[in-house]
Formats: sequence, structure tokens, C-alpha cells
Amino acid sequence: MLPKESKFLSLLRSHTDGVVEGANLLVEFVAAHDHDRRKAIYTEIKHVETHCDQITDEIFNELNRTFITPFDREDIHTLASQLDDVIDMINASAKRTILYQPKEMGDSMAIMAGLIKEMAESLQIAVCELDKLNNKKRAVIKVQTRRLHELENSADDVYENFIISLFGHERNAIEMLKQVEIIQLLESTTDKAYRVVDVLKTIMVKYA
Amino acid sequence: MLPKESKFLSLLRSHTDGVVEGANLLVEFVAAHDHDRRKAIYTEIKHVETHCDQITDEIFNELNRTFITPFDREDIHTLASQLDDVIDMINASAKRTILYQPKEMGDSMAIMAGLIKEMAESLQIAVCELDKLNNKKRAVIKVQTRRLHELENSADDVYENFIISLFGHERNAIEMLKQVEIIQLLESTTDKAYRVVDVLKTIMVKYA
Amino acid sequence: MLPKESKFLSLLRSHTDGVVEGANLLVEFVAAHDHDRRKAIYTEIKHVETHCDQITDEIFNELNRTFITPFDREDIHTLASQLDDVIDMINASAKRTILYQPKEMGDSMAIMAGLIKEMAESLQIAVCELDKLNNKKRAVIKVQTRRLHELENSADDVYENFIISLFGHERNAIEMLKQVEIIQLLESTTDKAYRVVDVLKTIMVKYA
Repeated sequence: MLPKESKFLSLLRSHTDGVVEGANLLVEFVAAHDHDRRKAIYTEIKHVETHCDQITDEIFNELNRTFITPFDREDIHTLASQLDDVIDMINASAKRTILYQPKEMGDSMAIMAGLIKEMAESLQIAVCELDKLNNKKRAVIKVQTRRLHELENSADDVYENFIISLFGHERNAIEMLKQVEIIQLLESTTDKAYRVVDVLKTIMVKYA
Repeated sequence: MLPKESKFLSLLRSHTDGVVEGANLLVEFVAAHDHDRRKAIYTEIKHVETHCDQITDEIFNELNRTFITPFDREDIHTLASQLDDVIDMINASAKRTILYQPKEMGDSMAIMAGLIKEMAESLQIAVCELDKLNNKKRAVIKVQTRRLHELENSADDVYENFIISLFGHERNAIEMLKQVEIIQLLESTTDKAYRVVDVLKTIMVKYA
Repeated sequence: MLPKESKFLSLLRSHTDGVVEGANLLVEFVAAHDHDRRKAIYTEIKHVETHCDQITDEIFNELNRTFITPFDREDIHTLASQLDDVIDMINASAKRTILYQPKEMGDSMAIMAGLIKEMAESLQIAVCELDKLNNKKRAVIKVQTRRLHELENSADDVYENFIISLFGHERNAIEMLKQVEIIQLLESTTDKAYRVVDVLKTIMVKYA
């Protein structure tokens, strides 16, 4: 049973490595103010996203091939899908920014990317602890789920303050449209990251 | 088996009580034309939404702890998630209205909030009847699923007429953007409420 | 067991017939530049969509009634839901175009509708092959999943190029808002069609 266990957990860990890498690239992407530099970084993000897709496929194929899994089949499936949603949204956020080329959006994008990076790291830590569930050492995962909750709340505040400020000063409707759509994707990225907490909790309770 | 049964059904009922309370507050919110009054009502909606989140968590934890459930585990899970989506969208609609501060939107918002309130009441009635499934007295649930279908159709009409009218008279693109996004959230709220019908039907057929 | 098998597969085939019919109508819809003509075609699309809803309901009811299914219950459910999402989005795209009445959108809409038509045909071919899974003749389905992947990539390119061009020349924010929302729905339609590949793969692996 142990080899199987290592297989799934090692695939899930590789996936979270990709999510962290993508989030780091997103921070770099936002900090770069030059369009060509951003395009280059976006290419790297796209590359990471494709790699994570392959890992997700591997997890699904492995699930369909394997009878004994370290925890419930459906929970592994959900966890992989939801981690994949996170990197997809990181990719979509960068892509939309490249396409829309908005004016400078103050520091909200940078703060949002920073929160996404912290959430990615938090997910990585939590997933790495999944093999210790049997030992009832779940303290680390609990700390991370609380941290993810706080980061998600911060992202909501950044989003709200950005919208209030944008509607207060921006008079160009096209620019407003672009910026609303970009900040919405970044905020959705934090939503997707936070949604992973549900399945982590389900797994923890099942192995309580 | 009966105590378990009561537990899940009573949690689901509490959740629909929250959805109805949230919908009533949304009607009040829309009727209030003063920004500060709306902010105060939004705080109450947020409070209800947080309370419903806690109930959903309780249902999930209970599901993970309990072996025997009144109907299929996955159906209880789906029902709780989908009810939670309804209160989340009520909350999001009010929040977006507070953030965007649109001009007066005619009576479409009020009609839409009224439809959401009726749908919430319909869900509440249907969920309260779930304990009578074994007695083959499913007439009440069937009436409610038909009513939810009609209410959803009405919401589609309100949405369409609003958009046609908005694009016909509004010349301010920023105002248009705000109003489109708000009416879309209200319409999505009715979609989410209507989606609950699927799982109600599934449960009914399984216990036919 | 065979009669059951035929029942599900024949319902799924009827559904994909509807999706193909809807996609063909969408191509016609986009090619028609007259508003009244478009309204007439939209009525036909809506009719097809309602018919597909009924087929989906039949599949769900049949699933709840039948103990032995040709492949896993949850996979049939997912397949039917996801096919239904495709026709829903075709309907929503036409409906939004009728409501928004955008100016001419170049040939992007026509290309997008053409891609959706090809994806629908691809899904139809793949679903018709599902009864040959036991014979390990899965080559046709594999060809279709690759084709769907390529079509989805083409749709992404069309979307990107459209947005770049739109933001480059359109100065009317209202017009821009309308066109962004319409092209986004068309692109989401191709996403939904591509998502069906997941469940097709799952089914193929299970019967490997």
C-alpha cells in the first residue's frame, strides 16, 4: 500500500510546486511594467500551467488504474481538480492582463499577487503534510486552513477598496471595464485557492 | 436511525431559514434607497451568510462522522452546497450594489429581489417536506419544483427586459457596466435557487 | 443488460444530435445579419435547447430507475450534464446577441460558431462510438478527443485576436462592453464542449 500512497502524494506535491512557481511568476509579472517583459513572463506561466495539466492527467489516470488509494478516490480527484483550478486562474489573470493592457492599476494588483503567492505556499505546506494524517499530527494543516481563510479575507478587502477607488476616480469607461475584469480574475484566483480548504477539511475529518 | 435523520433534516431546515431571512433582507435592501441604510442591511445579510456557512460546515462534518444518513450521502452534500450557493449569491448581489452604487435601476431590482424571496420560500417548504418521502406524500415537493421553474422563467424575463431597456436609454457606459453586472448577479441568484430542483428530483425518484 | 445499454446510449446520441442541430443553427444565426431573421433562428435554437433539457431529464430519471448501466452511473450523469451545458451556452450566446444587438463584429463570431459546430460534430461521433468500448476499438474516440483539443486551442486564438483588435480600434465603451460579453460566451461554449473530453477519457480508461 505504501508505494501507491507515495505515488499520489508525490504527484499532488509536484502539482503544488507548480502552483507556487506560477504564483511567484505572477508576482514577477505584476512587478514588471514593460509589456514585452510581461509577455516573456506570461510564456513561463503558460508553460507551468501546461505542466500542471499533465500532472492532473497523470493523477486521474492513476486513479482509474489503482484500486487502493491513500485516501478516498473522490477526495484525491477533487483535490487535484481544485489545485488545477488555481494555476488555471493564475494563467488566465496574466493572459487577460496581456490582452487588455490596462493603465497602471496602483498597487492593488501587486498586493493581490502577493496574497495569491502566500496562499499557494500555504497549500503546498498543507498538501505536504497529508502523509502524516495517520499519525494524527494534523496541527500543521489546521494552521494552514486558518491562514488561507485570513488571506482570502484580505483579498476581499483589496478587491473592495480597489473597486471603490476605481469607480471614484476613473472616468474612462473602457479603462474601467478592463481593470474591473482583471481584478475580478485575481480575486477569483484567491477564491479557488480558498476552496481547496473544503476538501482538506473533509480529508482531515475522515482520518480523525 | 431516527435521531440521525432529524439531525440532518433539522440542519437543512435551519439553512433554508437562513436563505429565507437573507432573501427578505435583500428585498428590504433594494427598497431602501439610502446608501447608509443599505450598508446597515448589508451587514445583516453578511451576518446571515456567515451563519449559513457554519450550518453547511456542520452538515459536512456530520456527514463525515455519520454512517447512516436519511438519504444518500452525496445528495445531502449536494443539497447543502447548493443551498449555500443561494445565500452566497444573495450576499454577493447586495455587496456589489454597495460597492458600485449604481443610479436608480427602475423597479427591476425590486421585482428580482421579490422573485428570489419567493424562490427561497419555495425551497424552505420543499426541504421541510423531505422527511415525508417515505410516506410517498411527495405532492408538496412537486408543486414547489414547478413553482421554482415558473419563478426562474419570470426572472429570465425581468432580466431580458431590463437589458433591452438599459441598452435602449443609458448613454453612460460606466453606469451601464455597473447595472449589467448587478442584474447579472441577481439573475444568477435565481439560477442557483433553481438548480436545487435537480437534487430534490433525484431524492424524490430514489425514494419513489 | 443489452436493452438498458441501448436506452442510455440512444438517449445520449439523441442529445448530441440536438447539440449538433443547435450548433448548425448558431452558424446560420451568425451569418444572418438581419435582426428579425436572427430572432426567428433564436426561437429555433431555444426549441432545440428545451428538447435537450427533456432528454437530460429522461437520462437522469432513467439513471435513478435502473440498476445496471452500460458504464458507471456517475459517468453517464456527468456526460449528460456536460453535453447539456454545451447546448445551454449555444442558446445563451444567441440570446445575448439578440439582447445586446452589437454592431458588426467582423468575422470572429462566424469563425467561433464554425468551431463550435465542428466541436459538436466531434462530440456526436465520440458518443456514437461509446457502445464499441468493450471491443477495445477506441481509436475513433481518441481521434475525436485530440481534434477537440485542437479546436479549443483555435477558439482561444480567435478570442485573443478579437480582443486585441477590439481594444485597438473600438472607442465606444458601450459597444466594447457588448462585444466582450458576447465573444466571452462563445469562448465559454467551446470550453464547455472541451470539458466533455475529461469524462470521455475517464470512461475509456475504466474500460481499457
